[in-house]
Amino acid sequence: MINPENPDINIPTIKDIIDACSRIGQFINQTPILRSSSLNNLVGAELFFKCENFQKVGAFKYRGASNAVQNANNSEKKNGFATHSSGNHAAALALAASKVNSKAYVVMPENAPLTKKEAVKSYGGEITYCMPSLESRENTLKQIVDQTGATFVHPYNNPLVIAGQGTAALEFCSEIKDLDIIIAPIGGGGLISGTSIAAKALNSEIKVYGAEPEMANDAYISFNSGILTPSISPNTIADGLLSSLGDLTFRIIQLNVDKIFTASELSIIKAMRLIWERMKIIVEPSSAVPLAVILENNSFFKGKKVGVIISGGNVDLP
Amino acid sequence: MINPENPDINIPTIKDIIDACSRIGQFINQTPILRSSSLNNLVGAELFFKCENFQKVGAFKYRGASNAVQNANNSEKKNGFATHSSGNHAAALALAASKVNSKAYVVMPENAPLTKKEAVKSYGGEITYCMPSLESRENTLKQIVDQTGATFVHPYNNPLVIAGQGTAALEFCSEIKDLDIIIAPIGGGGLISGTSIAAKALNSEIKVYGAEPEMANDAYISFNSGILTPSISPNTIADGLLSSLGDLTFRIIQLNVDKIFTASELSIIKAMRLIWERMKIIVEPSSAVPLAVILENNSFFKGKKVGVIISGGNVDLP
Repeated sequence: MINPENPDINIPTIKDIIDACSRIGQFINQTPILRSSSLNNLVGAELFFKCENFQKVGAFKYRGASNAVQNANNSEKKNGFATHSSGNHAAALALAASKVNSKAYVVMPENAPLTKKEAVKSYGGEITYCMPSLESRENTLKQIVDQTGATFVHPYNNPLVIAGQGTAALEFCSEIKDLDIIIAPIGGGGLISGTSIAAKALNSEIKVYGAEPEMANDAYISFNSGILTPSISPNTIADGLLSSLGDLTFRIIQLNVDKIFTASELSIIKAMRLIWERMKIIVEPSSAVPLAVILENNSFFKGKKVGVIISGGNVDLP
Repeated sequence: MINPENPDINIPTIKDIIDACSRIGQFINQTPILRSSSLNNLVGAELFFKCENFQKVGAFKYRGASNAVQNANNSEKKNGFATHSSGNHAAALALAASKVNSKAYVVMPENAPLTKKEAVKSYGGEITYCMPSLESRENTLKQIVDQTGATFVHPYNNPLVIAGQGTAALEFCSEIKDLDIIIAPIGGGGLISGTSIAAKALNSEIKVYGAEPEMANDAYISFNSGILTPSISPNTIADGLLSSLGDLTFRIIQLNVDKIFTASELSIIKAMRLIWERMKIIVEPSSAVPLAVILENNSFFKGKKVGVIISGGNVDLP
């Protein structure tokens, strides 16, 4: 439960991430770490890619959702879980709930892409449509929670979700012990929060960098001004990164993250194409933002061992 | 050197494959083995995918080419290597030759795809164009070999190449010890030959199946008739599988392969799409032929542990 008075007391520790790891270990994929000589030559650094596009439901989101669901007590499991999301978290929560024979109620705007709706349904999730506005979304969610007694699992501003997402970096830094840098994309900040806690605990020398689209740069602005500043109308091809930070993820980023870089839309597209072409893996645009940052800010990465978290691979193929 | 009188004396043994493994181990990628619950559910079998699309140059061909090049003596390395290929073997030989500071001479038809030409050049290979006929190709190759003293490395009908290709199955069967079936695509037969030798040596119970496009089914016809019967005008989306068997690969297939299946073009396209969508990896059409066979002949695979060799990932992205 998030303490609204003081987010600091909700900050997960490395112990929470290790607990998450044992809790969800049997349900998730231990994703492989891939390398590419061709990309290494291109950027003049040694890159390691933790491939969460190979995670169940095709994204790291399954780690956090699984941790929240697996941690619930029997009465919570009986009443089900609820969330608002038009993306990977919705599918992740639906699959995670099904693994404990529970139910996921998902609030989605009517105009969400068909494939996202299909994914949630295919995992047994129950969709309730809302208008595409924050107010409608929150009201609809509140109604569902009131009616069903379901537990709300926020997509990122939730300590259990953050601890779950941190298990990717825990695996990563346990396998590659001497990374100089770890870099992950920032949307709502759940992934970078968990990543930063795990990485700094396992390797006190490591730099943790966040990668954000220029066109959805609320974390960049908030981090550099010290004031939580949500995006007004973010608009980027990296559609998994449209969310703004929450108070909890902002606090963790302030404490742990060394620097946030932004990347242009053009660089994101170029980086995505490079990953498809050279690494032969399918990644969604959000996953390409860290490589876009590396291409745009080469001097920060040259000669370094850099861990890149590939967040997901859900794209609509033609 | 292939003995033209009696191909049997050229058949590589498991020892040759183990030797190849130590010879090329430091140059190749030990490719990961991926799984997909979604595909397992779809076919009702436990599938393991050995991902040679993650191999250097994007295909298993780098194993065989590396083994031939690394095995050469200094005078051979000085004179370089030659081959005819418009596909992955050409790029593989060019990169393998560059690793020993040697040179690769590649004979290609003028109408070969631009990306294939670029790949060979990017690895330092020297292209000589020929007319798109068998006669022109062989004459051009002979000229180059006469002029340069280069060693001809046949794309598949060569014991060192076959032993190199077998290292993929050696890794595969060492990691997953109790496969019921291993299945690989058949073009000229180098991959299935090496695979069959390694797999049968490590696991005497294993069934080795070949997968061929219906529209390029010379191995199917040759295997079932007992007479080596080259394709007349093969035509398939699986453009890596247009070659016909050689006498050496045919002999090995007769000795070791349990069955050859064919798949329709429609199944190949469907299987390729499934792999892209569900596994988030980029594979070329040739790599999808084994899964197409599994979809078309489900009863042979149901309930079994099936090892699938994904041969490569070189496609022209839009």
